[in-house]
Amino acid sequence: MAILLLISDMDPEEWDEAITRLAQQRRVRVWPYLEDPAEIEYAIVWKPPRGALQGFPNLRAIFSMGAGVDHLVGDPDLPDVPIVRFVADDLTEQMSEYVLHHVLLHHRRHLEYAEQQARKVWNPLPQPTAREVRVGVMGCGVLGSAAAAKLGAIGFQTRGWSRTRKDIPGVTTYAGSDEFLTFLGGTDILVCLLPLTPQTRGLLGGKLIAAMAPDGALPGRVIINAGRGGLQNEAEILAALEDGTLWAASLDVFETEPLPESSPLWRHPRVVVTPHNAAVSRPEPLFDYVLDQIQRFERGEGLDNVVDVQRGY
Amino acid sequence: MAILLLISDMDPEEWDEAITRLAQQRRVRVWPYLEDPAEIEYAIVWKPPRGALQGFPNLRAIFSMGAGVDHLVGDPDLPDVPIVRFVADDLTEQMSEYVLHHVLLHHRRHLEYAEQQARKVWNPLPQPTAREVRVGVMGCGVLGSAAAAKLGAIGFQTRGWSRTRKDIPGVTTYAGSDEFLTFLGGTDILVCLLPLTPQTRGLLGGKLIAAMAPDGALPGRVIINAGRGGLQNEAEILAALEDGTLWAASLDVFETEPLPESSPLWRHPRVVVTPHNAAVSRPEPLFDYVLDQIQRFERGEGLDNVVDVQRGY
Ligand SMILES: NC(=O)c1ccc[n+]([C@@H]2O[C@H](COP(=O)([O-])OP(=O)(O)OC[C@H]3O[C@@H](n4cnc5c(N)ncnc54)[C@H](OP(=O)(O)O)[C@@H]3O)[C@@H](O)[C@H]2O)c1
Ligand SMILES: NC(=O)c1ccc[n+]([C@@H]2O[C@H](COP(=O)([O-])OP(=O)(O)OC[C@H]3O[C@@H](n4cnc5c(N)ncnc54)[C@H](OP(=O)(O)O)[C@@H]3O)[C@@H](O)[C@H]2O)c1
Repeated sequence: MAILLLISDMDPEEWDEAITRLAQQRRVRVWPYLEDPAEIEYAIVWKPPRGALQGFPNLRAIFSMGAGVDHLVGDPDLPDVPIVRFVADDLTEQMSEYVLHHVLLHHRRHLEYAEQQARKVWNPLPQPTAREVRVGVMGCGVLGSAAAAKLGAIGFQTRGWSRTRKDIPGVTTYAGSDEFLTFLGGTDILVCLLPLTPQTRGLLGGKLIAAMAPDGALPGRVIINAGRGGLQNEAEILAALEDGTLWAASLDVFETEPLPESSPLWRHPRVVVTPHNAAVSRPEPLFDYVLDQIQRFERGEGLDNVVDVQRGY
Repeated sequence: MAILLLISDMDPEEWDEAITRLAQQRRVRVWPYLEDPAEIEYAIVWKPPRGALQGFPNLRAIFSMGAGVDHLVGDPDLPDVPIVRFVADDLTEQMSEYVLHHVLLHHRRHLEYAEQQARKVWNPLPQPTAREVRVGVMGCGVLGSAAAAKLGAIGFQTRGWSRTRKDIPGVTTYAGSDEFLTFLGGTDILVCLLPLTPQTRGLLGGKLIAAMAPDGALPGRVIINAGRGGLQNEAEILAALEDGTLWAASLDVFETEPLPESSPLWRHPRVVVTPHNAAVSRPEPLFDYVLDQIQRFERGEGLDNVVDVQRGY
């Protein structure tokens, strides 16, 4: 019996060592080098080609290499086995640090200072403290609730929004579409950590931006998206930057990745582009997580973080 | 009896409103518009011209508008009255947020990403988590200990160094010259929040940088100075950047301020220049603090945060 690794869109070299270690514990096959499909019981996958997960008669569970499963759940030919997504401190901490960095970058007006520095201009700007700034986190799951708690701990007025109500120390929480406008109306800096689903696609656009607080202590509204590119409408974000509704943005994810050279986002003076690296699944914690789950599953203890395919996350 | 405001090097306009409010509680004179020097009991000062504090026969205390008093204590003609420095949550929070921002900026390799963005390059870089990075805070007074505690709370391996030993939750502390090299030897990112005194002048130079940890999880050593420009040796910092001993720096303070146009720091690709704005004394918290101290002093309760002029801070 074996584990299948079906990981497109990543450099296998950097995974070699970890795969060798994994292979000391379980038989491992790296797609597409398969001898006997019947020996595959578990699959670790990232962006599998459509249908690639069919034809494994003994498959018992699929592990998504990422926290997000939008690369998977849209496949109508998905085998009917549990899909487990990746959850680990290593990933959660990376994301919290990305979020803290980008919230503080805009809070401390870094883009303006960098531009002044390039012109050798010495000009202190008005600076609120964190307690004067309201940060709203959209999506309070594993990643969003950890980021929100840290934002609250370092002093920002922090609020969170999710489908169902949460209880996060130091964070005011809002739930569902009923409370969406109230949530947005008191948000100066919006952090998006939603999964991409039919319900959330395109949400980060002109309408949402216009519903954010108009009167913050910073020069204007800020959005930070580290969820998925499909959550954002890039044309509307650019239009909002142009007409002043939006002051600045940090985007880690894009409608098309890598971001095409032709995108005006690259050179926009108030957009920070990062190459989908907010939180990267590293082989060691990923394989530790999968092995641990398999062991517990085989002892009859069930699986954690199983995705609701209908819901899409 | 009156309070004297002797504040050079600041825009009096933005203080007008606050001064009007202060004047509702105490008689206020703004230097150099003085009628009767004998009516001055307290002085709020920033960078007073040498000797300007003489000739006030009834002066009882001097309040420094800043947390630092290097602008004052070198004056041999200083009247023999207590010198109180400014300490307030507003200032401490600003400084913690500056420090968190600049530590995270280097931790998340922002300068490299900004440079890549300018060239439209999509290239994720290796990224440690905070728990893999060691931050050392030099100077664990009011500002340093607050910043260190927050760095620890968000996950950095945090250590602090001061003259006398401190006890800061989540922070390993070192004291005195005996433990200086041990402190530096385990520091990847150095944050300097020392006061400028004869003992600390020029400390941030080539020797100190070379004594920092050589083997961190980041591409190289990083220094952040938000203390005073006199603490740093800019020629040696530039040389260390050139020869690779130093990877990057954030400097809020400079040997000469404003930083002269001729300084190579302005355009160095791995230096972040900010215009001495890490933590700015704002009129409202400053006057609240001074009035509160005066009231307690006049009730016979003594003054807080009195400077040791001999020690220089
Ligand atoms: N940029 C990167 O490097 C990177 C790295 C990792 C992950 N990600 C992205 O981050 C996302 C979140 O990860 P996670 O582990 O935190 O996921 P999670 O634990 O499943 O959390 C998702 C959160 O979104 C909320 N949500 C979903 N649909 C919603 C809707 N229609 N309205 C309101 N709230 C909704 C959920 O609400 P309930 O809790 O009420 O269900 C939950 O709070 C992933 O899906 C992935 O796309 C990006
Ligand atoms: N850039 C800005 O915007 C800005 C704004 C405000 C303040 N500042 C600067 O920040 C400095 C620190 O402010 P603070 O309120 O935190 O001052 P503080 O409470 O007096 O703290 C000073 C710290 O430095 C330590 N120290 C002093 N001399 C030392 C030496 N020779 N060796 C080792 N440690 C030494 C002290 O050690 P002990 O505790 O053991 O005495 C103390 O921990 C100010 O002096 C000012 O220059 C800059």
